[in-house]
Amino acid sequence: MELIDGKKVSGDIKKEIAAEVAEMIAAGKKQPHLAAVLVGHDGGSETYVAAKVKACEECGFKSTLIRFEDDVTEEELLATVDKLNGDEDIDGFIVQLPLPKHISEQKVIEAIDYRKDVDGFHPINVGRMSIGLPCFVSATPAGIMELLSRYGINTKGANCVVLGRSNIVGKPVSMLMMQKGNPGNATVTVCHSATKNIKEICRDADIIIAALGSPEFVKEDMVKDGAVIVDVGTTRVPSSVTKSGWKLKGDVDFEHVAPKCSYITPVPGGVGPMTIVSLMKNTLLAAKKIIY
Amino acid sequence: MELIDGKKVSGDIKKEIAAEVAEMIAAGKKQPHLAAVLVGHDGGSETYVAAKVKACEECGFKSTLIRFEDDVTEEELLATVDKLNGDEDIDGFIVQLPLPKHISEQKVIEAIDYRKDVDGFHPINVGRMSIGLPCFVSATPAGIMELLSRYGINTKGANCVVLGRSNIVGKPVSMLMMQKGNPGNATVTVCHSATKNIKEICRDADIIIAALGSPEFVKEDMVKDGAVIVDVGTTRVPSSVTKSGWKLKGDVDFEHVAPKCSYITPVPGGVGPMTIVSLMKNTLLAAKKIIY
Repeated sequence: MELIDGKKVSGDIKKEIAAEVAEMIAAGKKQPHLAAVLVGHDGGSETYVAAKVKACEECGFKSTLIRFEDDVTEEELLATVDKLNGDEDIDGFIVQLPLPKHISEQKVIEAIDYRKDVDGFHPINVGRMSIGLPCFVSATPAGIMELLSRYGINTKGANCVVLGRSNIVGKPVSMLMMQKGNPGNATVTVCHSATKNIKEICRDADIIIAALGSPEFVKEDMVKDGAVIVDVGTTRVPSSVTKSGWKLKGDVDFEHVAPKCSYITPVPGGVGPMTIVSLMKNTLLAAKKIIY
Repeated sequence: MELIDGKKVSGDIKKEIAAEVAEMIAAGKKQPHLAAVLVGHDGGSETYVAAKVKACEECGFKSTLIRFEDDVTEEELLATVDKLNGDEDIDGFIVQLPLPKHISEQKVIEAIDYRKDVDGFHPINVGRMSIGLPCFVSATPAGIMELLSRYGINTKGANCVVLGRSNIVGKPVSMLMMQKGNPGNATVTVCHSATKNIKEICRDADIIIAALGSPEFVKEDMVKDGAVIVDVGTTRVPSSVTKSGWKLKGDVDFEHVAPKCSYITPVPGGVGPMTIVSLMKNTLLAAKKIIY
């Protein structure tokens, strides 16, 4: 069993990006610039945005954080999006989700200029990804593909089971895994809450991508010997051991499943760090105007 | 075994649309108007466009056909798209594919105003469909879902195997089948040229949607008793029996597969007529400005 070390890979990629940015600046080009909009004080969102700001520093990007309190109106938020769309110094920006209930997330996502949509959530980017055209691929699926690629895992003709059909992981990663390409070219099965025989389906899988948000859902008896396991789950569960009072749990019963696998991602330190680095890669692409 | 009669269902739907159009006109509203752009004289394209014009008449729509010779420039074609985008009387329009090689199909598709893109090929419509937002769903996948719905076929929790990963059938129908909804909520497996164990996968399927374009690919020994078979294949094969010298063959060996099925679509007369009627439904939605 080999551990897929997302922390190490993401560190490598950040160094690669930083080297490229140094070259760009030496050549007299503008420093890439990512902006993030954060509404309220949700614990998870604070953590993610802080990690993104830190990653920008490591990559040599300029970053701007725009904060609003929970009572910001949809109108104010849309006006900010509009301003960021028009700001020539900003190459890409994200609006951290979730948003308070009185604001339509979909409306905000669609207000973002798709050419600056480095989260890859705008319908144009989702559609272009599905068709197989150049686009900003959303960060988690892109990070998974990068891990499979860097570890040289063969996906062509592999039976790949995706657990979960969310818009941000399950559906896009299934599209990427089935498309012509390397990684890609897998036979993909998408399972979800209405699936009847999920155990049997998982047992036939060469690759399982677990993105249900259900802690330790994937058990030892659901995994065949030599399978590749990508665990996207990051559920906070109470813990008496940690200072924060909680720890992250993946969708896979790591302790019992890992010994059977050829490759497996840990939680934390697997897919998580790759998500942030994929956002950095998108920002670099935006700065270089390679896609649009 | 029950035959899924696409010809009958499409006839019913055209009558439903015609009744609604009659009411709209009686209420003083504008007649829905579909335009089609046809380049060259490809036999298949001529047939499809003629069928679309005829379907417009049956539905009470106004239709406009714009023809170009094979040597039309990309610029001229894009100028026509631009004109149709701005023509207030035209609710929706299509550019019949394939286009001559010197013209970028993708460029033409993306030039169409997505609010008039009744073929559902624009990345915005593809992305919105994937996310599960209101949009113009492309005609063939929409027609398949309509048939499953009208025949009351249970898809929830069903193992659905999609053969083929094309942008116009395989990928979108897999998205629709896996999404929450009825029909939908199926466990979807997408197979293609790189799939290794296609026979075994098909044998486990409750529903097979065959869209490979490979005549009679699905044989008796690939289908379990009681399966539902949707045959999207329409390959022209030489024939000494027909006046035209060819006949349409589906992706399913109908003669031997049909006796094992609970439901099956014939070719012709199954999915084909539904494709055109789905375009009519999209045109009606466009005229009513229900989606955008």
